[in-house]
Amino acid sequence: MKEIINSEDKVALSELVLPDDLKDLSLKQCKGLCSDIRKMLISTVSKNGGHLASNLGVVELTMAIHRNFNSPEDKIIWDVGHQAYTHKILTGRADEFPTLRQKNGISGFPKPEESEHDVFISGHSSTSVSVACGIAEAMKHQGKDNYAVAVIGDGAMTGGMFYEAMNNGGREKDRNLIVILNDNNMSISKSVGAVSRYLTSLRNTEKYIRTKRTVEKGLGKIPLVGDGVTKGIKYVKDSVKYKILEQSTMFEDMGFIYLGPVNGHNLEELEEVIHVAKSYHRPVFIHVKTQKGKGYSPAEQNPGEYHGISKFDIATGNPEVSADDSYSITFGKELVEIAEKDERICAITAAMKYGTGLQFFQHSFPERFYDVGIAEQHAVTFAGGLASMGQIPVFAVYSTFLQRAYDQLIHDVAIGGLHVVLCIDRAGIVGEDGETHQGIFDVPMLTSIPNTVIYSPSCYDELKMCMNKAIYTDKGIAAVRYPRGAESVDFDKHYLSTEHLLVSNKDSSTLMIAYGRLYNEVCLANRKLAKDGIKCDVMKLTKIYPLNLNIIREIVDYDRIVFFEEAYGEGSISEKIGDMLAEYGYKGNYSRKTAEGFIKQASVKQCFEEIGLSADRIYRYIRTECSENGKA
Amino acid sequence: MKEIINSEDKVALSELVLPDDLKDLSLKQCKGLCSDIRKMLISTVSKNGGHLASNLGVVELTMAIHRNFNSPEDKIIWDVGHQAYTHKILTGRADEFPTLRQKNGISGFPKPEESEHDVFISGHSSTSVSVACGIAEAMKHQGKDNYAVAVIGDGAMTGGMFYEAMNNGGREKDRNLIVILNDNNMSISKSVGAVSRYLTSLRNTEKYIRTKRTVEKGLGKIPLVGDGVTKGIKYVKDSVKYKILEQSTMFEDMGFIYLGPVNGHNLEELEEVIHVAKSYHRPVFIHVKTQKGKGYSPAEQNPGEYHGISKFDIATGNPEVSADDSYSITFGKELVEIAEKDERICAITAAMKYGTGLQFFQHSFPERFYDVGIAEQHAVTFAGGLASMGQIPVFAVYSTFLQRAYDQLIHDVAIGGLHVVLCIDRAGIVGEDGETHQGIFDVPMLTSIPNTVIYSPSCYDELKMCMNKAIYTDKGIAAVRYPRGAESVDFDKHYLSTEHLLVSNKDSSTLMIAYGRLYNEVCLANRKLAKDGIKCDVMKLTKIYPLNLNIIREIVDYDRIVFFEEAYGEGSISEKIGDMLAEYGYKGNYSRKTAEGFIKQASVKQCFEEIGLSADRIYRYIRTECSENGKA
Repeated sequence: MKEIINSEDKVALSELVLPDDLKDLSLKQCKGLCSDIRKMLISTVSKNGGHLASNLGVVELTMAIHRNFNSPEDKIIWDVGHQAYTHKILTGRADEFPTLRQKNGISGFPKPEESEHDVFISGHSSTSVSVACGIAEAMKHQGKDNYAVAVIGDGAMTGGMFYEAMNNGGREKDRNLIVILNDNNMSISKSVGAVSRYLTSLRNTEKYIRTKRTVEKGLGKIPLVGDGVTKGIKYVKDSVKYKILEQSTMFEDMGFIYLGPVNGHNLEELEEVIHVAKSYHRPVFIHVKTQKGKGYSPAEQNPGEYHGISKFDIATGNPEVSADDSYSITFGKELVEIAEKDERICAITAAMKYGTGLQFFQHSFPERFYDVGIAEQHAVTFAGGLASMGQIPVFAVYSTFLQRAYDQLIHDVAIGGLHVVLCIDRAGIVGEDGETHQGIFDVPMLTSIPNTVIYSPSCYDELKMCMNKAIYTDKGIAAVRYPRGAESVDFDKHYLSTEHLLVSNKDSSTLMIAYGRLYNEVCLANRKLAKDGIKCDVMKLTKIYPLNLNIIREIVDYDRIVFFEEAYGEGSISEKIGDMLAEYGYKGNYSRKTAEGFIKQASVKQCFEEIGLSADRIYRYIRTECSENGKA
Repeated sequence: MKEIINSEDKVALSELVLPDDLKDLSLKQCKGLCSDIRKMLISTVSKNGGHLASNLGVVELTMAIHRNFNSPEDKIIWDVGHQAYTHKILTGRADEFPTLRQKNGISGFPKPEESEHDVFISGHSSTSVSVACGIAEAMKHQGKDNYAVAVIGDGAMTGGMFYEAMNNGGREKDRNLIVILNDNNMSISKSVGAVSRYLTSLRNTEKYIRTKRTVEKGLGKIPLVGDGVTKGIKYVKDSVKYKILEQSTMFEDMGFIYLGPVNGHNLEELEEVIHVAKSYHRPVFIHVKTQKGKGYSPAEQNPGEYHGISKFDIATGNPEVSADDSYSITFGKELVEIAEKDERICAITAAMKYGTGLQFFQHSFPERFYDVGIAEQHAVTFAGGLASMGQIPVFAVYSTFLQRAYDQLIHDVAIGGLHVVLCIDRAGIVGEDGETHQGIFDVPMLTSIPNTVIYSPSCYDELKMCMNKAIYTDKGIAAVRYPRGAESVDFDKHYLSTEHLLVSNKDSSTLMIAYGRLYNEVCLANRKLAKDGIKCDVMKLTKIYPLNLNIIREIVDYDRIVFFEEAYGEGSISEKIGDMLAEYGYKGNYSRKTAEGFIKQASVKQCFEEIGLSADRIYRYIRTECSENGKA
């Protein structure tokens, strides 16, 4: 083992060349840094919002990793990268850390373009072992003896990809592949199912590595590479039979050496287990127990609430803005109302109970509530199974995570024409979470699935109307998509609809089309245009797919049609309208503004401004268009 | 146990009311039927093509299931439903069975519209346990005491969905959920990874259920419901400690009672294990060992080749048509050529080595070949990991199965701009496999992903050109999509291109656009039109996305543009061209013909005719259009 300089001097992050200098510090100095990092995490997240509890839980683990691996030659892959804040701080980004999640600032997730230490993008769950497998194979091909290290939470272990990757990762015995389980016994909500129970049973066993090493010592030095490992382990197992056999784990069944569980807040233990893991030069699984929210008492007590949070007051832990006013809460409460009158309603979430507002449903109807873990594929097909028996399943899911279930929607629901209701939260721009979380692909995705209806309400009342329509009137897949946060209503709420609506001046030759919350931006722009003497008509789509064929007849006489859409442009509704206009033989001027490419982190407002979908940009776009091409 | 009438008389399927009468037969009579069924399977598949080896393996298992469960009240869910042929025969479809996979005939997969005994559609893998979970929950809500039974192959166990479902299925102890593993030690190609090894280890143990039951008997009658079960099992375990502990399985870790392994060709054993499983009224996992191809020696010897097959000669087992002439083989051989000169090339398949033509690559470069199991999600992200290290991963996959990896393509590859090559086989109409396997969604799916390039070659030579372009010129995701089967070339092969090509008469006012194999149909139609004096120009797209913006300028002067496309219409290339025309201000007549909805089984030729994409239908469409709307 490397020499440790037992200095007593406190060091500051700013004095260090990171991560390299970490290796030269004493454990005491490291612990001091860990304390500084915790303060930094709490301070920044309280101002910028972000993921707190998980990051507080991995401070020591991250320290141990960077002291015992050589990043960037060794590749550290963070699963659901929101646990990578300490990693960012320890790889030279402490100074920029206060810009976390802000426009042009540090990303809340690993991002290769930000640092060579951020190996792979990860905002979605359960991907790290697959990435690490790929990297470990490439290292083998390239003759490199470095390590591929995946750090994965227990919540992410409920995703099927993890299992697919473990099934492959344990195949080749000579790979430097290390999977570190950050087991905080919690995941996003309460972790669920057999995996959770299983980890609990492991968590309560004595330390496996200790037992093993003790026996190793007793046996004299067993060689730790090649055949010797197998023999050694076998011998160890045989010699303590019952004890070790009972602990033979699922991970060993999958071809990994299992080490743990170790205390994730004890640097010495962590360093020892990593040292042993490295020495095997084989696929190793390290089980680390951590406490979510460690070191900040409000987060320790309510880790669920401090998972992904908005700005809060450090002293009290109270959020600055009440989360009660949101589409999610409106959805959650309305679903309870509906379910009170209808026993067929079942609610499903993939580990996002609070985020989707389903906590009310769980409270009222626990026997009809299902948190399936981070398992969107299962969620959709499970919903299909329920629907095939006449239940009415409602799957509440973030737009970006629904991408995981594209095939299940087609194959297990749509072909059979089963009635499954999707309530799609965080649809459209999500803001600070950035590229990995933008909800801009659900429209192209869902419109490419036959037998699907999609609504995009523009306010809470319309959300409720659409939910009832989706649940009781439509067949097949019925989706209602709504954005993160609260409604903005600057339009006349007397005109609500679950279909579409044309607000006409009778003498305008320009028509603006929009749906969802963008309808409000268009109305704001239109008021400003009216002040300039430019009169536009506005069409709001609520049922955005399939489009009522009458729409074409209603719009085809306008000289100019502009569609503003908060979705990716390819396969979007505005593209479909364009095609319909071409097929109809439209002779006027058609254009559209959509959310192009992968949209970087910033506030929602800043994103709208950036991509040309804010009221002001819409106003300016129409002004320019109209002055360039003649009056509207 | 039920009374068994020990009749010696042979019975014929046609004399029975199925499946109910099966319960009244003697085991001897049942064995006679099994033999008849095997003949029927071999005879029909030899004429119609289909899945043979897997179906020959589950004859006795299916018999045992229908003798011991009450379908349709008990719900039998067949995973990757191609193993459900015997189920179809035993539920009253013996007479129609010769129409298997033919137009208007019996589907090769379970299909609820075909029979009340076909509970759920299943053509894709690893879905059955999720479905069974949903059904078991619904039964609970509805106060029904029936069983939900999933029958899943060992290959399907490599898919992550299986694990997601098991994680949830073992949670509630009072569900009548039974998972039957049909372990044929083979799956589609050789099954892969840890799961395979793990099953082998279980397979070689003594029968677990025997051990258990013997002990049970020794202990007197232990109650088999409620708390008693747990206590009983615990006692049993304790009393035979070492032996049973060693057999404690991953499935037990997941909350299921594990029974097995039993011989899947021994009716008595199968009936006993099902009887015991039912008596628990808890989630139970039954491990059944079967032999793929059982009873037909060519299939026993080469089960991989008899997985999904075309017509063959029963006596010799030889296929009627050589499979050597296909896009798949062309791809496979070309990839070997490329990889010989470039060590960075890695090839990945998700359990479709033979289907995709990768057997050549495996033979030449085993260390760069990866069969990851039925795990498309892992395959894509694994490819991302390889790409992040500078390797060039080529994932060869069927269009319909790529749907499983939509999120991974977006999140793990596209955002990072990683260079991953997709070679998409079975793109477009696949014919006899029907709705679940049509490759018509990859175009809408992939075009909705930023940083993606898509090619659709119209012949083998263009396929090779596109492969080289995708591998060496493009960045990000580069996809080449090509159909099942062999090329048809009735056009002038001097004009090949990886971009687009306009074949012009200089004086035509009608333009037909097409890509892929449909280009050939359009050329055939055009020749026929020319004979009628109707002159059309033809544009072939090879790079179908993103579209070269010059295309609009090249086509906008035609009076009439008709796009024929072998893809789902929503989000298709023809829809994009339509929108581009509208935005450009096209004043002519635009129309398009695409593959709408879920297309039912029939030969590819019949499907083309049905959906209006055969040369003849194209010819007639243009004729009608032109005479109705003035000459071309």
